[in-house]
Amino acid sequence: STYKLLLLPGDGIGTEIMREMEKITQWLTAQGIIFFETETDLVGGASYDAHGTPVTDAVVAQALKADAVFMGAVGGPKWADVGFANRPEAALLRLRADLDVFANLRPAICYPALVGASSLKPELVEGLDILIVRELTSGVYFREPKEIVTLEDGSKRATDTQIYTTGEIERIAKVAFELAQQRRNKVSSAEKHNVMASGILWKQIVTQVGKELYPSVELEHVLADNCAMQLVRQPKQFDVIVTDNLFGDILSDVAAMLTGSLGMLPSASLGNTNPVTGRRFALYEPVHGSAPDIAGQNAANPLAMIGSLAMALRYSFDRGDVAEKLEKAIINVLANGTRTRDIADGAQAVGTSAMGDAVLAELQKL
Amino acid sequence: STYKLLLLPGDGIGTEIMREMEKITQWLTAQGIIFFETETDLVGGASYDAHGTPVTDAVVAQALKADAVFMGAVGGPKWADVGFANRPEAALLRLRADLDVFANLRPAICYPALVGASSLKPELVEGLDILIVRELTSGVYFREPKEIVTLEDGSKRATDTQIYTTGEIERIAKVAFELAQQRRNKVSSAEKHNVMASGILWKQIVTQVGKELYPSVELEHVLADNCAMQLVRQPKQFDVIVTDNLFGDILSDVAAMLTGSLGMLPSASLGNTNPVTGRRFALYEPVHGSAPDIAGQNAANPLAMIGSLAMALRYSFDRGDVAEKLEKAIINVLANGTRTRDIADGAQAVGTSAMGDAVLAELQKL
Ligand SMILES: CC(C)[C@H](C(=O)O)[C@@H](O)C(=O)O
Ligand SMILES: CC(C)[C@H](C(=O)O)[C@@H](O)C(=O)O
Repeated sequence: STYKLLLLPGDGIGTEIMREMEKITQWLTAQGIIFFETETDLVGGASYDAHGTPVTDAVVAQALKADAVFMGAVGGPKWADVGFANRPEAALLRLRADLDVFANLRPAICYPALVGASSLKPELVEGLDILIVRELTSGVYFREPKEIVTLEDGSKRATDTQIYTTGEIERIAKVAFELAQQRRNKVSSAEKHNVMASGILWKQIVTQVGKELYPSVELEHVLADNCAMQLVRQPKQFDVIVTDNLFGDILSDVAAMLTGSLGMLPSASLGNTNPVTGRRFALYEPVHGSAPDIAGQNAANPLAMIGSLAMALRYSFDRGDVAEKLEKAIINVLANGTRTRDIADGAQAVGTSAMGDAVLAELQKL
Repeated sequence: STYKLLLLPGDGIGTEIMREMEKITQWLTAQGIIFFETETDLVGGASYDAHGTPVTDAVVAQALKADAVFMGAVGGPKWADVGFANRPEAALLRLRADLDVFANLRPAICYPALVGASSLKPELVEGLDILIVRELTSGVYFREPKEIVTLEDGSKRATDTQIYTTGEIERIAKVAFELAQQRRNKVSSAEKHNVMASGILWKQIVTQVGKELYPSVELEHVLADNCAMQLVRQPKQFDVIVTDNLFGDILSDVAAMLTGSLGMLPSASLGNTNPVTGRRFALYEPVHGSAPDIAGQNAANPLAMIGSLAMALRYSFDRGDVAEKLEKAIINVLANGTRTRDIADGAQAVGTSAMGDAVLAELQKL
């Protein structure tokens, strides 16, 4: 069968890195390894410029029918003043919500060839391979009230609401435990049960899911502030970290930065089974942003986008075999010394498209 | 005049480190440099064991009359099952709230002698001197509703509420700008205005306070997730970071860990003027915890507690001259190679009391 991919390059470097990913999907299709059909549309600032909204209902409708959605990146200074509802990030948040892709998987991997690029001492990050599982469609990001009201004296009061339910915590906990079973069998659950009601419930439910369904997976509870500290102190103590939307936002950025490979990290956001396609709702995107300063210069690093395709092969299309080859191709390219500007560290750098070509060439050898 | 200090050693290593701080206050008093009178009481688990509550009304009443309150540390596995209301941390939260010490100052300093102890590469942390100004008495820590309700189907829903008002943001912003003026004249304000209503208001008010009252201080806005990243990537870009209670909890822990001096960092929490004393409500405590595993072994590092006294000399008693000498004494002791176990890195370590004596001896020379 042929899988339908919706490609949403977005803003800044999005178009350039998406093009490199397509080189891979086209080759895989041409070889008959797996068949992809792609459709491309606007999102973020690009959509706002064309349609007055960062994501149209038509694009959301396409996303709901796709086997997987790929997003490049959104945002840039150009849209600084379009207002809260129209900001490019709103597209991302709407897609997350409408697809209900509640499980955001963010691997933090330190590539052997890039150990020296980390801020941390080499011995702390050599071989680092953490997976952050972040709840992505609830919590303070999406719950109501979220408002600013003006009081009688003219001053203002802003309110945000963090809500988590048993069901929401159960489903994300299961994802974390399942993934840990395929890795090093350890889950660290991060919350603030010493301060937050949602932290108390989080800890309770994760404990219960672990006991009842995954008794052989080691489970530890860690306060979110301590988790951030421990990521800096001794990151290799972690395997899978499961946490809520807001803590996950921060902890995954810390973890990403540790690896020295910030521009190279992919992510997958997974939901429940889509009745239309029979597979999980899924949204794949690089962890990095739209880097408007280098857009259009053939200078961006496409490896996070290509790595996101590897995640799709594994999580959407059950082709772990191809995913592993693609990941190996990325590692080989780096080991060969091929570098885009962001990771060149003074050495000769290649352009975005040369990097994409290099990955494809390596993949063809495997 | 004689200043009244309320000393709350708390649990674990609290008693030992407080004793070393008292050596300094006693010497300062004996020398007539500044006159202190101290009173000591129970807090945390120790108070729960004696009185069935982590902090008694009597202790709160004493705190409200003191010129400054010093807390050692609270908590430990012994009180894991006493329930949410009686957990040792509740004492800390109640004291923060009742004294309304809304401005939590957390310096993250990399001591020259300890550069090698950081997880980060030496060039990233050499000379590091950041001040985190964390809002401490509002936000998701204290606002209502904060509750867990059981729904009809037996499942649960947990709610926490983040609220910030114009006035709350104004007062913490002023503290940050004032402090920046005495430092390197730069404030970085961290929030999530791309997701949170409170982030939008935070950014607006901080901008306004900066423009109207501190136009000569450089102000930058940084998303909290990016701030966490930048702390790891290039921490020396920061001078003063101002942020809310929850982000401040995490960001200050990241910043503390960067310095390699985690066990050595002090903190000050300041409020409005106390009508009883005529000076600001103030609570001083180390950033580190109660370390129950090494309690009673004369192994704890008292420098964070002693550093908290230096902060009190500066912020409560207008004796920046003495504060500087005490801080210099700490630096000298470290430069001499005197180390407690936590920072010995294999070398010969001295005990808690020997470290306190060493600081006093250095102070006497200055
Ligand atoms: C762009 C922003 C809304 C988003 C978030 O906060 O989730 C980003 O930081 C991320 O982590 O994907
Ligand atoms: C002990 C805990 C309640 C406290 C907090 O979350 O504020 C601690 O982490 C801190 O940073 O002082």
